Amino acid sequence: MKHAISVTRSENFPAWYQAVVEAGDLAEESGVRGCMIIRPWGYGIWQRMQELLDRRFRETGHENCYFPLFIPLSFIAKEAEHVEGFAREMAVVTHHRLRTIDGVLQPDPDARLEEPLVVRPTSETMIGAAFQRWIRSYRDLPMLLNQWANVVRWEMRPRLFLRTAEFLWQEGHTAHATAEEALEETLRMLEIYRSFAEDRLAMPVIAGEKPPHERFPGADSTFSIEAMMQDGKALQAGTAHYLGTNFARAQSIRYQTENGDLAYAHTTSWGASTRLVGGVVMTHGDDDGLKLPPAVAPQQIVLVPILRERPEDGAVLEYCETLARELRAASALGEPIRALVDRKSARAIDKRWSWIKRGVPIVCEVGARDMSSGAATLIRRDRARNGERIESSAIARAELVHRAPELLAEIHASLHGEARARLTANIRSDIATLAELKSYFAESGDEESFRGWAKLPWARPEGAALLAVERELKALKVSVRVAPLEQESVAGQRCALTGAPAREQVLLGRAY
Amino acid sequence: MKHAISVTRSENFPAWYQAVVEAGDLAEESGVRGCMIIRPWGYGIWQRMQELLDRRFRETGHENCYFPLFIPLSFIAKEAEHVEGFAREMAVVTHHRLRTIDGVLQPDPDARLEEPLVVRPTSETMIGAAFQRWIRSYRDLPMLLNQWANVVRWEMRPRLFLRTAEFLWQEGHTAHATAEEALEETLRMLEIYRSFAEDRLAMPVIAGEKPPHERFPGADSTFSIEAMMQDGKALQAGTAHYLGTNFARAQSIRYQTENGDLAYAHTTSWGASTRLVGGVVMTHGDDDGLKLPPAVAPQQIVLVPILRERPEDGAVLEYCETLARELRAASALGEPIRALVDRKSARAIDKRWSWIKRGVPIVCEVGARDMSSGAATLIRRDRARNGERIESSAIARAELVHRAPELLAEIHASLHGEARARLTANIRSDIATLAELKSYFAESGDEESFRGWAKLPWARPEGAALLAVERELKALKVSVRVAPLEQESVAGQRCALTGAPAREQVLLGRAY
Repeated sequence: MKHAISVTRSENFPAWYQAVVEAGDLAEESGVRGCMIIRPWGYGIWQRMQELLDRRFRETGHENCYFPLFIPLSFIAKEAEHVEGFAREMAVVTHHRLRTIDGVLQPDPDARLEEPLVVRPTSETMIGAAFQRWIRSYRDLPMLLNQWANVVRWEMRPRLFLRTAEFLWQEGHTAHATAEEALEETLRMLEIYRSFAEDRLAMPVIAGEKPPHERFPGADSTFSIEAMMQDGKALQAGTAHYLGTNFARAQSIRYQTENGDLAYAHTTSWGASTRLVGGVVMTHGDDDGLKLPPAVAPQQIVLVPILRERPEDGAVLEYCETLARELRAASALGEPIRALVDRKSARAIDKRWSWIKRGVPIVCEVGARDMSSGAATLIRRDRARNGERIESSAIARAELVHRAPELLAEIHASLHGEARARLTANIRSDIATLAELKSYFAESGDEESFRGWAKLPWARPEGAALLAVERELKALKVSVRVAPLEQESVAGQRCALTGAPAREQVLLGRAY
Repeated sequence: MKHAISVTRSENFPAWYQAVVEAGDLAEESGVRGCMIIRPWGYGIWQRMQELLDRRFRETGHENCYFPLFIPLSFIAKEAEHVEGFAREMAVVTHHRLRTIDGVLQPDPDARLEEPLVVRPTSETMIGAAFQRWIRSYRDLPMLLNQWANVVRWEMRPRLFLRTAEFLWQEGHTAHATAEEALEETLRMLEIYRSFAEDRLAMPVIAGEKPPHERFPGADSTFSIEAMMQDGKALQAGTAHYLGTNFARAQSIRYQTENGDLAYAHTTSWGASTRLVGGVVMTHGDDDGLKLPPAVAPQQIVLVPILRERPEDGAVLEYCETLARELRAASALGEPIRALVDRKSARAIDKRWSWIKRGVPIVCEVGARDMSSGAATLIRRDRARNGERIESSAIARAELVHRAPELLAEIHASLHGEARARLTANIRSDIATLAELKSYFAESGDEESFRGWAKLPWARPEGAALLAVERELKALKVSVRVAPLEQESVAGQRCALTGAPAREQVLLGRAY
């Protein structure tokens, strides 16, 4: 069978991913190591994600702000002192001018900065310093900030969207009077990520807490949502950290309580990034390219006029434009429908395939015959294939306008259902010992062959026992993803990895 | 008379500006040279500007994308070769890792980049290189892209919003088949900036073309909108460049025409930045702080409950929340009204002043007495002062909800009218010679004292004549702002600066 994407998922999943990102006009390499160009269709998806998340952040009382791109080295040095596992791969600015010397443009030796500047890998330290200045009294709490920004972390093995040196994200930073309020905030944001992933990206996830050895450095607890990609690997798709008073102590973030005492604030941070775009590709894509969940599709319905360079072409275009206006006047998933008439001068068949590869939920082709019967030819991206054939059906214009909201909701549900079934089917609960875990993950020498996740009883090992477990897991290229928030009882069970009495269930798997 | 801002405009305009930006919670210095922290209220204004401009860009067919933060030095070197007046003040990344050596965290000498990376001062070269790859045929044209991003230009004398090393902006880049289409695009975007400034920022501007010596380096023509600040200085508030085939030739941006020939594309670029926030402050602010045009105010109506720590406080809060919901259900200036109940625990009088300083268009105070009479106490920020007193009036709740759209429209009109009157009154048309110009701009030694603009007949001098004019103007710290698009006849007149026959009118003034 022929497919629109040159490599299939089963042939080579990483190559398929790369091909879908290119064929779907999402992004490309820029020539600058690890930095990508996000093309309009890819950026449109990210902008939809931003709009939807931003609305949820605001509704829960958060305000956006903007902190500098550059962080003085001394700030970073202070953080390095108190943060274990501090990452050092950062872009460092050392000069502020170029000069031509002997015909070669180069950093001007006379414009060396007294103190080097680091391009932010996160704004944690800058925002912490601002909290220290801005928070005086309990009246200033909670302080609920968010920032949309680019950040840079040098990457040795970059991959478009999934791991890039520069990426776009949002980072929330909040300060609270009590531990309870801060933990409540952390879980509130985790729930926003979870429901956004499920309800808007049609991407089923497991929300849970990371074990201590997988925490964000300096956090008291780290939570995440984990999605299963079609190769079985986990993608961490959003994280929320409860930082206790650790950062407040390091940065002197204190407030006067109602009694007049000085107390440290309890802080949180949480983030999601352009990596989500990669998650959508690997959750929903097929061998014909991307399938977009309607809520984040830059266009939900694309009308392709079939033009024959004949006099009736004008009428066909006009028919399409009218239909698009009618669709835009309707709402789906709580927003006006996004409909586009593709007026580009290209063959209709090429346009059809370009929109299929881009994953637009509904493509409608309109030729002179459709027009004269007051109809359109509808292709649902989620059910486009019937073997070699593309499945299409005639739909009356009025019916299309009337049914569009329902169709888009159905497409969301079908994408979600398919991904949910895959997730459920591929979490194994029958692995009870390390030997079984090893046999599952090591039985094929090929690290790229499909492996799901394992759900195990876990004793929360520490110290030497944990180190031993970590070593075994590392050899399998597997990690503990989370202890799911939704737990089943482990009463009487033993930890699959240490044999000690189990305290909770955890999920293990390979991950991006 | 007492004012909320410690320095008045007439005492010291630059100090007043700085004080308003601080008192209005717009932005502050970050400790990183030239980089500001944009606080939530300031960022909220910028985000409103983004939303409104982005909508206009999309409606005119532009698509957003994202290009890398870093530009390889070799790209910059290539540009330097062909661009006269190329600016060299840029942040240069030379290392990709930090290391602790002798106890000091520093750029790791083993992680020096083979090729230094420049932090983008603009994405012109990167987007040009992408155009070169993406544009093959006339079918790919026009290519209409826009990017929202941060850029960095080293600044020796930074000022919040007006001149910062890092700033936020949008940069549009387009490619067209013909000169006519590209010039049409340039003027279309100029008109978007003009109407946005007038209709949304209530900031009257003059749109026009820069004389050749003030053009963007490499442009065939540069257009801008120029606004008059309350100190008489001009603020360039948006620019649009028609680049001819200059950039296309330098970067080999060619396309196959319908006849099969290869031709260079005609390109444009256009931008507006966070500098607009500074423009709003200096256009509308008064000695009590900011006055925000309703279309970009993050909140348009703030309800301040007057709480007495008495049992009826709960009812007052509930009354305010209900009123806010009713207001949000109404629309003003084409969008749902943005209304907030200020629930912070602070004295009502302090809240009143904080919102006046932040420039919220309407403040409504609600005490138990207002509640029992079904009313609120309304303060219009544009008419807050009656000498020492703050002007407020009772308004019935239903009337407030009913009249809010009209009140907000009135406030926009009153801000716009006041600024328009100031602009009109301060353009002098009676300066006919260089001597008169000198006498106007040099008659006070104080460069900060108010001077408006001069509208002069101009002969478009070139060569030595232009150099002589430039020298004179530079001594006066004056520049040619634009030749307004709306021209009056100069038939028979002589150029005020050269005595040669005049060809058009130009505006001269001091500028930010």
